[in-house]
Amino acid sequence: MRAAVIRNPGPDFSLEIIDKPKPQPGDGELLIRLEVTGLCHSDLSMMLREWSGFKSRMDTPGHEGAGVVESLGKGVTTWQIGDKAGVKGISWVCHECESCMKGREQHCPRAEFAGLTMEGTYQQYIVVAANYATRIPNGVDLHYAAPLMCSGLTSYSALRKSGVRAGEWVVVLGAGGGLGHFAVMISKAMGARVIAVDQGEAKKELCSSLGASEFLDISSATDPVQRTLEITNGGAHAVIVTSAHPSSYTTATNYLRTGGTMVCVGLPATGQAIAGADPHDFVTKSITVRGTFVGTLSEAAEVLDLCAQGLITPVVERFPLAQLPDAVGLLREGKIVGRAVVDLWS
Amino acid sequence: MRAAVIRNPGPDFSLEIIDKPKPQPGDGELLIRLEVTGLCHSDLSMMLREWSGFKSRMDTPGHEGAGVVESLGKGVTTWQIGDKAGVKGISWVCHECESCMKGREQHCPRAEFAGLTMEGTYQQYIVVAANYATRIPNGVDLHYAAPLMCSGLTSYSALRKSGVRAGEWVVVLGAGGGLGHFAVMISKAMGARVIAVDQGEAKKELCSSLGASEFLDISSATDPVQRTLEITNGGAHAVIVTSAHPSSYTTATNYLRTGGTMVCVGLPATGQAIAGADPHDFVTKSITVRGTFVGTLSEAAEVLDLCAQGLITPVVERFPLAQLPDAVGLLREGKIVGRAVVDLWS
Amino acid sequence: MRAAVIRNPGPDFSLEIIDKPKPQPGDGELLIRLEVTGLCHSDLSMMLREWSGFKSRMDTPGHEGAGVVESLGKGVTTWQIGDKAGVKGISWVCHECESCMKGREQHCPRAEFAGLTMEGTYQQYIVVAANYATRIPNGVDLHYAAPLMCSGLTSYSALRKSGVRAGEWVVVLGAGGGLGHFAVMISKAMGARVIAVDQGEAKKELCSSLGASEFLDISSATDPVQRTLEITNGGAHAVIVTSAHPSSYTTATNYLRTGGTMVCVGLPATGQAIAGADPHDFVTKSITVRGTFVGTLSEAAEVLDLCAQGLITPVVERFPLAQLPDAVGLLREGKIVGRAVVDLWS
Amino acid sequence: MRAAVIRNPGPDFSLEIIDKPKPQPGDGELLIRLEVTGLCHSDLSMMLREWSGFKSRMDTPGHEGAGVVESLGKGVTTWQIGDKAGVKGISWVCHECESCMKGREQHCPRAEFAGLTMEGTYQQYIVVAANYATRIPNGVDLHYAAPLMCSGLTSYSALRKSGVRAGEWVVVLGAGGGLGHFAVMISKAMGARVIAVDQGEAKKELCSSLGASEFLDISSATDPVQRTLEITNGGAHAVIVTSAHPSSYTTATNYLRTGGTMVCVGLPATGQAIAGADPHDFVTKSITVRGTFVGTLSEAAEVLDLCAQGLITPVVERFPLAQLPDAVGLLREGKIVGRAVVDLWS
Repeated sequence: MRAAVIRNPGPDFSLEIIDKPKPQPGDGELLIRLEVTGLCHSDLSMMLREWSGFKSRMDTPGHEGAGVVESLGKGVTTWQIGDKAGVKGISWVCHECESCMKGREQHCPRAEFAGLTMEGTYQQYIVVAANYATRIPNGVDLHYAAPLMCSGLTSYSALRKSGVRAGEWVVVLGAGGGLGHFAVMISKAMGARVIAVDQGEAKKELCSSLGASEFLDISSATDPVQRTLEITNGGAHAVIVTSAHPSSYTTATNYLRTGGTMVCVGLPATGQAIAGADPHDFVTKSITVRGTFVGTLSEAAEVLDLCAQGLITPVVERFPLAQLPDAVGLLREGKIVGRAVVDLWS
Repeated sequence: MRAAVIRNPGPDFSLEIIDKPKPQPGDGELLIRLEVTGLCHSDLSMMLREWSGFKSRMDTPGHEGAGVVESLGKGVTTWQIGDKAGVKGISWVCHECESCMKGREQHCPRAEFAGLTMEGTYQQYIVVAANYATRIPNGVDLHYAAPLMCSGLTSYSALRKSGVRAGEWVVVLGAGGGLGHFAVMISKAMGARVIAVDQGEAKKELCSSLGASEFLDISSATDPVQRTLEITNGGAHAVIVTSAHPSSYTTATNYLRTGGTMVCVGLPATGQAIAGADPHDFVTKSITVRGTFVGTLSEAAEVLDLCAQGLITPVVERFPLAQLPDAVGLLREGKIVGRAVVDLWS
Repeated sequence: MRAAVIRNPGPDFSLEIIDKPKPQPGDGELLIRLEVTGLCHSDLSMMLREWSGFKSRMDTPGHEGAGVVESLGKGVTTWQIGDKAGVKGISWVCHECESCMKGREQHCPRAEFAGLTMEGTYQQYIVVAANYATRIPNGVDLHYAAPLMCSGLTSYSALRKSGVRAGEWVVVLGAGGGLGHFAVMISKAMGARVIAVDQGEAKKELCSSLGASEFLDISSATDPVQRTLEITNGGAHAVIVTSAHPSSYTTATNYLRTGGTMVCVGLPATGQAIAGADPHDFVTKSITVRGTFVGTLSEAAEVLDLCAQGLITPVVERFPLAQLPDAVGLLREGKIVGRAVVDLWS
Repeated sequence: MRAAVIRNPGPDFSLEIIDKPKPQPGDGELLIRLEVTGLCHSDLSMMLREWSGFKSRMDTPGHEGAGVVESLGKGVTTWQIGDKAGVKGISWVCHECESCMKGREQHCPRAEFAGLTMEGTYQQYIVVAANYATRIPNGVDLHYAAPLMCSGLTSYSALRKSGVRAGEWVVVLGAGGGLGHFAVMISKAMGARVIAVDQGEAKKELCSSLGASEFLDISSATDPVQRTLEITNGGAHAVIVTSAHPSSYTTATNYLRTGGTMVCVGLPATGQAIAGADPHDFVTKSITVRGTFVGTLSEAAEVLDLCAQGLITPVVERFPLAQLPDAVGLLREGKIVGRAVVDLWS
C-alpha cells in the first residue's frame, strides 16, 4: 500500500509517499481500506515536535480516517465486510481503567493513538479495534466523515462541555480553521448564536456562510473583547478556544459573561501559554475554564448523526495523495479554509 | 450603639471603637441586634486596600453577623421580633437581573454588600432586607452562625461547585484557616476524604481533629503535590484553594487527577496570581477550574442546616468588642486558628 | 375598563364582557395596559372546575398577557412607562421560601396567580409585581408574546427538564395544540428531531410546517408507539405530554428509549390519569418521568429571546374581545390550531 | 466443584447441592474461586418465575460473588492469580452499543448475566470477563464484598440517581432488607438523613444501628407519609423504594417534597404495581420518578471503596453451603435481617 512517512521530525520535517506492507487484522480487529484522511493541525504540531506530551515515534501521521471494512479479525461479529468505518485518534481503549469506567475513555493510559502509538491514517489501510471503531451512517460522505473523526468530534465535545444552550452566545476563537469552523456549525446546530473571531476575508466569508452572527477580525482596530461585551450585553455564555496561538489564551476569559465557561481546545507549543485568569476574575464572575481532549466513542456517533441529519456540513478542501505533503505545507502556512482532506486512492 | 470604624485604610490602617447612632428599618427591612460578628480575611484585604475590585468607602467593616430581630420595617410579615437572624456579605439583591434570575444572585450588580456598600457587622445593630436575611435554626449557637454566614457559606458553595462526592478526595489549600477549616469539615460531612495542606503544628492539629486523612506541611521537605498523587493514586477529585497566598495558585491544578476540579476561593492581592495552567494540562487531564463567590441564600440555609445537624462545628476563638482591633491584628499575622469571632456586647 | 367575567363556573359556565374599574398599582407594582391575552387550555379546565387543586374564586380568568407599562407604583426604578411587559400565570413570588431560594419559584406557596388568586388577563388592565413581570424584547410582537407567557414558557421548561440535546428525538403528544406546537418549535430550535402525535389533517399540516420529522395520527390504524420505536431505532430520548387527554398518559412511557425522559405537562381532570409505568419498565430501561409547572422568570426571558432571534414563531388565531366567549368555545371543542389570542382593544 | 441447582422452578421450586464440572477460562476471561455468594431477593423472584422479563433457563442461580482469581485466560494482562475479584450480575458487556457508549452498560442488550444467561454464583467456581470483573480492595472482607456486588451496588446507584446531597432527607421503603439496609448506610455515608420505613422490631433495631434518624413501622397506627411530612417539614428530598411489595409503590411519591425524586429499585411481580402518580402531583410538585438497574462497573468500584474506607459495613448473616436451601427459605419468609451470605467452602 501507499503511505506518507515523516522524515526528519522537527522544524525541518518533510513527508514522503512510499510503499509499505498492508497490515492484517488480529483478534477483535478490523482491517479498514481508508478512502480519506483529514489533515489535523495536531499532526503538524507533532511533526514539528512542538508538544512535549505527544511525541510520536511513528513513521506515518494521521488520525482522521474514513473508509470501508475490508476484512475481519477473529471473533468480530458486530461488523460486516463493506461497512463504512471511521478511524479516530484513539483506536483502542482498555475499558477497565478509571477513565474508561467513568466515560472519559479518551484518557485511558493504555489507549492506542493513531499516528502516535501506532501508524496513522496517512496511508491506504489501517487496523483498529472493532469495538472502538466508529460506524459511519448512511448519508455521510467519507470526505465529511474523516474530519468529523477528530476536529468535528473535538469541537462537539467542547461544546457539550461548555453547557451552552439554544439561544445563548458562543465565541469561537480561531473560527475559520478546521476545529473552529466545526465549532461554529455545531453551535448553530444546537441553536446557539455565534461570534466568530479570526483573521482575514476568506475566514470571514466562511464563518458568515456557516451562520455566525458576527465576525470579529483580530487584525482590525476594534477590540474583539469589547465588541463582544456590547453585542452580547455582558459577555458570551461560552468561549471555545480552537486557535493554537498562545495569544488566544491571553484574553479568552474576558469574553465571558458571569457564569460563563471557556473550553480549551487549541494547543500552542508546550509552555507557551497559560489558560486561566486572575483569581479575582474567577471569583467575581463565577466563571469556569475546562479542558477537553478529542471525545468519546458516543460523541463520535453523535456528531456523525448531526451530519447525517444535515445539521452540519464540513467545509473541506480535497487533495490527492500525491499532494499530501503540499497540503500539509498549506496547513502550516494557515492557508487552509475549513479542513484539508486527502483522497488516498487518487 | 458601639461600632468599630476604620482609620487610614491601606497598609497602615487601624480600627477604633466608637459610638454611632442606631439605625432604623425601612420598608421590608429588619433591625437586627447583632450579638456576634466574625472576622473574615476579606475584611482585612479590604481594609488594606489590596483588592482593586472591592474598595469599601464604608467606616465599619464586617459581613458575618448573627443576632436577634429587634424590630420590623413596614410590610414585613415573614419575620417576628425575637427570631434569630444571620447577616451575610450580601444583604439585598434585586431579584430581577440575569444573575438573580439564574440562581447566582450573589453576582447581582445592584446588590448591597455589608462592609462594602453599606456599614458592616462590626457594630451592635444593622438593618438588612427581610427577604434576604437568613434564619438561624434552633441548635445553632450564634458564635457558630456568624462565621457560617461568609466563610462557612463560601466553603460550602465551593464544595458544591467542585462536584465532589462521598468517597472522593479533596485537597484543601490553606486548610487551617477560617475558610479552610470549613472546607475540611464540609468535605467530611459530604463523605469525602481530605488532604489538608497548610503550615505549622497548630494547623496540623486542627485539621486532624476535624477529620483530615492527611496533613501536608508546605514548609516541610516533602513535595505536597507528589505526596498527594501517591496517596490518592493519581490526584484529587477536587482542590479547594482557600489560601490567599499567590503561591497557592502556582501548583494548585497539579494536585488534580484526570477529570478533577479546582475551585478558586482565596483572593491574593489583585494582579498577584493566575489561576489556571498550560492548555496542555487542561486538555490532557480534562480538568476544570472554577471561581465561586460567597454563596446563595439557599446555600446559606443549607450550611446552617449541616451545623444544626451536628455535621459541622466551627472552630472559633472569641474576643470581646474592646479587643476587636487586636483580633484583627492577630488575623493579619496569621495567628488565628479557625475563625475569630467577636462578642459585640461583652 | 372592559373585562370578561365567568358566570356559573363548572360544566355549564359562560363568559360575559362587562365594565370593571381600572386597578391602580401599589408599592413595587406596575399597571400594565394589556393589548393581548392568550386563551390557555388551563383557563378552560379551571372554568370547568375540573382541577381540584386549582379552584379559582376570581371573576376574570386568564394568565397570558402582553401589553405596555402605563404607570409605576412607588419605589419602582427598573421599569419605565411605555416598556413592553408580559404577564405570566405567576405574578408575584416571596423570594424567600425554599422553592424561591432553589430556583423553582413557581412553586412558592405564597405566589399570586393571575386568574386564580387574583383577577386575570381577560381584561384591559392588570397590576403585577415589577420584579416578577417579564420584559418583552424588541422584535417580539405582543400577539406572540402573550402565549409565550404560559404555553411557550411551559413547553420550554419541559424541554429543558427533558435534558434533550441536538440530534436527539422528541415525541410530542398533543403536538398540534397550544402547548404542543410550542414543544415542536422549541425542540427544533434546540436542534432536536420531532415526532408529532395528534389527530386530523389540520394538526398534521401545522406540525409539518413547524418542522416535525413525522406526524403520527392517533386515529389511524398505525400504532404510534410501534412506529416511533422503528423511526427512532429504539425509542425517543424525550416524550413531552402536552395533551390533557387521560389516554395520552396510558402509553406515554412506551415511546421512550433506554435512559429516556418523559415530562408531564398536560393535566387531565384530577384523578383521571396516572403518569408512570410498571416498576419493571422503569428499571429495565432506566427511564425517568418528571413533572413541570409553567416555568421560572429566567425561562420566560429565555423563551422570549428564542422568539426575538426568530427561532420560534407562535402560530396564533386572533379574535377581538367581543368574540372571546366564542373563542373559548372553539378551544373547548378542540378546534383551535396553535394558540387563540384575543385583541383586548378591538 | 459443588453447586446449588434449581429444581422445578416456579412457586414450588427447590434447591439441591450437587457436583458439577469446574469451568475453564476462555480468551480474556478469569476463573474465579468463589468464597462467598450473597442471596439476593431477585434470585428468589427469578426462581419463583415472578418476573416475566427475567426468565432464567440456568440451573444455578446467584449473582453476588466474591473470591480469588485462580487462573487467567489467554490475553489477560491486567489481573494476577491471587487477586481478589467480585462477580456482579452483569459479567460481560459489548462496549460498543449505545448503552455501553453512554455509560449505562448494564442495559447492554448483549450483556451476560450471572444466574440468568450464564450459570450463577451459587457454586464454587465461575468464569467471567476480565475487563468487567471488579477488583476488591484491601480491607474489604469477602463476606462484605459479595453483597456489595448487587444489592450494595444497586442501592448506591439509586442514591446517586436520586441526586440527594449532604443534609437532605432520604426515605427508604423496605429499609431493613438487603437492599434497604444498604440504602440507609449509603445515605448516611453521603451525609444525608434517613427515615427508615419497614416492619417489626428486628428491622427497627437494624435501621437505628445504621444511623437512621427515624424508623416508621408500616404496621403501626401512624401514617408514615404524614409523619414524614412533619419530620421533614414538607417531604423528603429522595425516596428509595427497595421493597418489592406492590403496596410500597402506591404511596411512594407522597413522601416527596417539591422537587424531590423517587427511585424505583424493588421489583414486585410483573404487572402488580405502577410506579408513578396523578399528573397533577407531578406538575404541582415538580417531582421526578426514575428507575435504576444494578449499576455500572465504576459504581461497583465506588461502593467497594466506601466499604474500604469504613463508611459502610454490610450486615450479613452467614450460612454454610449445605444450608443454602434453608437460607433461601428464610429469605422467602422475610426472616433475613440485612443480607444472607453463603460460605461456599464450609
